[in-house]
Amino acid sequence: MKGVILTAAPEARVIDLTHAIPPQDIVAGAYALRSATPYFPPGTIHVAVVDPGVGSKRRALLVETHDAFLIGPDNGLLGLAAAARAVVRTFDVSRSPVRRRPVSQTFHGRDVFAPVAAALANDTPPADLGTPTAPMHRLRLPAPSRRGQTVVGRVLWIDHFGNLITNVGRTHLDHATFRGRRVSVRIGDHVLRLRSSYTSGPAGKPLALVNSLALIELALPHGSAAATLGAERGARVVVEAS
Amino acid sequence: MKGVILTAAPEARVIDLTHAIPPQDIVAGAYALRSATPYFPPGTIHVAVVDPGVGSKRRALLVETHDAFLIGPDNGLLGLAAAARAVVRTFDVSRSPVRRRPVSQTFHGRDVFAPVAAALANDTPPADLGTPTAPMHRLRLPAPSRRGQTVVGRVLWIDHFGNLITNVGRTHLDHATFRGRRVSVRIGDHVLRLRSSYTSGPAGKPLALVNSLALIELALPHGSAAATLGAERGARVVVEAS
Amino acid sequence: MKGVILTAAPEARVIDLTHAIPPQDIVAGAYALRSATPYFPPGTIHVAVVDPGVGSKRRALLVETHDAFLIGPDNGLLGLAAAARAVVRTFDVSRSPVRRRPVSQTFHGRDVFAPVAAALANDTPPADLGTPTAPMHRLRLPAPSRRGQTVVGRVLWIDHFGNLITNVGRTHLDHATFRGRRVSVRIGDHVLRLRSSYTSGPAGKPLALVNSLALIELALPHGSAAATLGAERGARVVVEAS
Repeated sequence: MKGVILTAAPEARVIDLTHAIPPQDIVAGAYALRSATPYFPPGTIHVAVVDPGVGSKRRALLVETHDAFLIGPDNGLLGLAAAARAVVRTFDVSRSPVRRRPVSQTFHGRDVFAPVAAALANDTPPADLGTPTAPMHRLRLPAPSRRGQTVVGRVLWIDHFGNLITNVGRTHLDHATFRGRRVSVRIGDHVLRLRSSYTSGPAGKPLALVNSLALIELALPHGSAAATLGAERGARVVVEAS
Repeated sequence: MKGVILTAAPEARVIDLTHAIPPQDIVAGAYALRSATPYFPPGTIHVAVVDPGVGSKRRALLVETHDAFLIGPDNGLLGLAAAARAVVRTFDVSRSPVRRRPVSQTFHGRDVFAPVAAALANDTPPADLGTPTAPMHRLRLPAPSRRGQTVVGRVLWIDHFGNLITNVGRTHLDHATFRGRRVSVRIGDHVLRLRSSYTSGPAGKPLALVNSLALIELALPHGSAAATLGAERGARVVVEAS
Repeated sequence: MKGVILTAAPEARVIDLTHAIPPQDIVAGAYALRSATPYFPPGTIHVAVVDPGVGSKRRALLVETHDAFLIGPDNGLLGLAAAARAVVRTFDVSRSPVRRRPVSQTFHGRDVFAPVAAALANDTPPADLGTPTAPMHRLRLPAPSRRGQTVVGRVLWIDHFGNLITNVGRTHLDHATFRGRRVSVRIGDHVLRLRSSYTSGPAGKPLALVNSLALIELALPHGSAAATLGAERGARVVVEAS
């Protein structure tokens, strides 16, 4: 992909965002993109490839927002980053005039997304790179639910450090049930206190905190919460005041 | 290595190709290089270091091709990329005048390959960087064999996704035995249908396909074929028409 | 972090040093930084984030040396790189005027270190970025000890290849006990000969060598010494002449 971009757009600067997305984990990729895009300069072209559906009929998308471009498969990967910005137009670039031919059945990053990114870097108007299309498919995320005095959610993914990121966010805590009270998170047989940072609990104990994505995360300072809690992606978490 | 290059050649652009070569896996490295080099701009200097023999008498090579340079150990790593291009000259740069001294016994990437790459980036003629030498050592790869109506091959390496890449290529399928027929791949007790893409088989089932290197690959969409098939590098595969 | 740097300092060149530091392993990070910094051009701004104490009262440091800058948490991570250079001044940048506000409790790389690095790249004087502060905390490393004819040390960390890096250095071998004699390293029930390179021992056998950091390292060519020796971080090693 880098070679394709630099061949077509020699002045482009190619930046690696992360090498730590678990294979085929669209949700982890979508959050990584959502968390990084706001910090890049206006006009940045973000190319993302977590693409287990490559070779199927899924669309290849170019999303033009008020201050950036997002390119990738139409599988939800771009959804969170797009939802956080003003989307101007969305194009289907599956059959973009700049695609490499023949397009392989296994690697659209190289054959479709990278050529489109390079063309944008060369100031090609987005409308020349694809056809206007309907909004992208939404990322289907499990939604947390309020049950009495608790919020019940799930582990969305497990990061490189073994931290468990849940779908319960800061906004769920902004509710009469929780305000001014101690908050705990139950997962399996474990109960973790919500703390303000990784270092504000007792040493060696797993804890919960609101992370830099504004989501509740379960962590073990200097260790792996996933290993200690024996929990997996999709595990149920119950947030409660005590 | 990046520091050495940027100190000597401040205008050089340093691009990471991959961080996912399994430790000391020369075959995986050779294929990664082979698959990426065609897509880079003419004149690109490719430096590769999968170098378990560092500190031995193995040569350090600079290969000049019609449109690129390849630098690395003489252990086969450069072989597939070189074979795909017109090689002009090969130099032994083990004792290059630009090497860092003393050359460590454990890290020629820093002390030999990077200084040679930087000198090339500064337009030093390749002949000033080493001595003409015989062609490089070939990568010894197991060759698939045709047995009656089948082709018998091996798993060359297992990638980051758990996909198994075999030494049976598209060219083996271009034979009367297979033409116009269903093709299957047997590995251990498993039989996998050859499909056109990762998504064209039944959900949750491992399948075979011809990948972007034109090699038959065994994959499990949304999972790890290696884990599901219980197969390792070197495992035997039998390709047959049915 | 890259987005924050490039937004504030569009001309900065951002280089990835390594993606292979084990999570929260300050010692491995400190050695990686120590081993890489000498090879970068004068004036390089090195930003390092292995930061299990983020959110606590630990200082955020900017270390100005005679020819480079080091930025990171005050947990020992910068210590080995700083000790190898002439330190001019040290600043506490925890409340730097260029920090992003609010500073998150979980990611000072983005909110503190990256903005400080970008300001330096824009030639802001270091004294404008923080307040002069006392020298940094030292990295607490286990010290090897001489016992009769032996040196007793520990495994400091295990690298990406499964090599075990110990705290016994070349300087410990420069002693009458060892000079001109065969040297071995005992670990558990294993005895490894000290060799000059990865390739100078018998095939398939683990060996010891002095690595590019001048530390004794235990390695298995074409394999993982950690797996073969069954050894972990902190394991005891005994270096002896025979």
